[in-house]
Amino acid sequence: MHLYDFAKNLVLEAGNNIRKWMHEDLEIVAKSNPNDLVTNVDKAVETFIVNQIEAQYPNHKIIGEEGHGHHIDSTEGIVWVIDPIDGTLNFIHQRQNFAISVGIFKDGKPYAGFVYDVMRDILYHAKSSHGAYKNETPLPLLPSTQLKESIVGLNPNWLTKPKMGEILQPIIQEARTARAYGSAALEIVYVATGLLDAYVTPRLHPWDYAGGLIILQEVGGKGTNFLGEPLSITHHSTVLIGNAAIHEDIFMRHLQPKAQELQTLQQRFK
Amino acid sequence: MHLYDFAKNLVLEAGNNIRKWMHEDLEIVAKSNPNDLVTNVDKAVETFIVNQIEAQYPNHKIIGEEGHGHHIDSTEGIVWVIDPIDGTLNFIHQRQNFAISVGIFKDGKPYAGFVYDVMRDILYHAKSSHGAYKNETPLPLLPSTQLKESIVGLNPNWLTKPKMGEILQPIIQEARTARAYGSAALEIVYVATGLLDAYVTPRLHPWDYAGGLIILQEVGGKGTNFLGEPLSITHHSTVLIGNAAIHEDIFMRHLQPKAQELQTLQQRFK
Repeated sequence: MHLYDFAKNLVLEAGNNIRKWMHEDLEIVAKSNPNDLVTNVDKAVETFIVNQIEAQYPNHKIIGEEGHGHHIDSTEGIVWVIDPIDGTLNFIHQRQNFAISVGIFKDGKPYAGFVYDVMRDILYHAKSSHGAYKNETPLPLLPSTQLKESIVGLNPNWLTKPKMGEILQPIIQEARTARAYGSAALEIVYVATGLLDAYVTPRLHPWDYAGGLIILQEVGGKGTNFLGEPLSITHHSTVLIGNAAIHEDIFMRHLQPKAQELQTLQQRFK
Repeated sequence: MHLYDFAKNLVLEAGNNIRKWMHEDLEIVAKSNPNDLVTNVDKAVETFIVNQIEAQYPNHKIIGEEGHGHHIDSTEGIVWVIDPIDGTLNFIHQRQNFAISVGIFKDGKPYAGFVYDVMRDILYHAKSSHGAYKNETPLPLLPSTQLKESIVGLNPNWLTKPKMGEILQPIIQEARTARAYGSAALEIVYVATGLLDAYVTPRLHPWDYAGGLIILQEVGGKGTNFLGEPLSITHHSTVLIGNAAIHEDIFMRHLQPKAQELQTLQQRFK
């Protein structure tokens, strides 16, 4: 079977498993802090996906949120970047509004991206240079918008941080309005489908954005870190996502002028 | 036909109209500022609802967002409080995530509430003392949660306001996380169904919360202004919504200690 079709079927099957397993007792454990939670389902889904890939493609590398391949530094060959449940707090509290995110890269270049909104049964997917789809519907290229007529995705909590908050507040004040959905993968595909115009967040891991980024690029959207640099698939980063026009609008007027301060903040987050 | 059934059918029929009319050209006009928008569909839906009520119940009073009954000060008799499209920015930008909200009061006391998520075809509804429903499914009583283990709904923009931001930031910092969906009516029924634990906003009109509030009260939830006073059905207000435990938690520790400052801010908003 072709790699793209294998990956697509695998994501859908993993979603089936989540819909089955979520009705059993959830075991919830805190990771880095009391609000950074993981469940037995997150772990079981990652194991399921990893086992299937390893059985079919033993030479592929895999980076997964719940512990697989965190030592990987080289992007040579084929690398899968996986979040079994992106939006775990939504999964725990809402039992909806979470996604499976999978990005596949060949020698560091995007090959295919999948973001599966499990409870709505909507698969966003793209193969590089072949366009992006919402289920079977092709996604159109994004329009150009400016910040002042736009909806920006941002977790409100970032606005309360001493230094980062000062940098982000003017963006939100200038925007038409802001939304927060609690799943980076979904928020990126919401930009790719025009529900949001931009999405801004000071710290994401590659598994949060790898799948969505490839879909976004296929509709003419742009994703970089706050310094305008390409997003890494092996290290966490600040993230600015948008249609090409608003990405430039926010970057040029709000972030580039504060590049020095941002560099200091990024150092601190490392 | 019974008033409750009349209102329920009317809301569903209005939703049908929105789904039809939204495919025609939208005329978008700014109201109080460039981000406070209204469309021809908002207005047509309010006119449709008002005409139906007036034909059936000529003695009822009607307060509607798009201009009906803004002079009404007395709550004697039967008063309908209507938002034809709550979440107009979502309606314009996303064509989803908006709701019809209808609250009906008898001599100032809640009689029935309806919040209709039009595009998902989900009607949240309640008749006072008869329980609340999501379509035909009865809603259970809300659990008690504390702020630190809770998801709070809040538009991020409020955190950037000079004085109000200082009052709200500690609430968001203490919460497990925050969400922003852009429709007060939906955010209130999200509290009533447990997707959110609380919802906090410094300025809403009665038509934004009248329908949702009645649904919320039927599942044991609580809604007041920031000073702990009952919400008015004729005047705008600050709004704190939550299950009973988190409502008390936020009010006692974050709002009551700042009552004097809040009173000054409320004066300024008048």
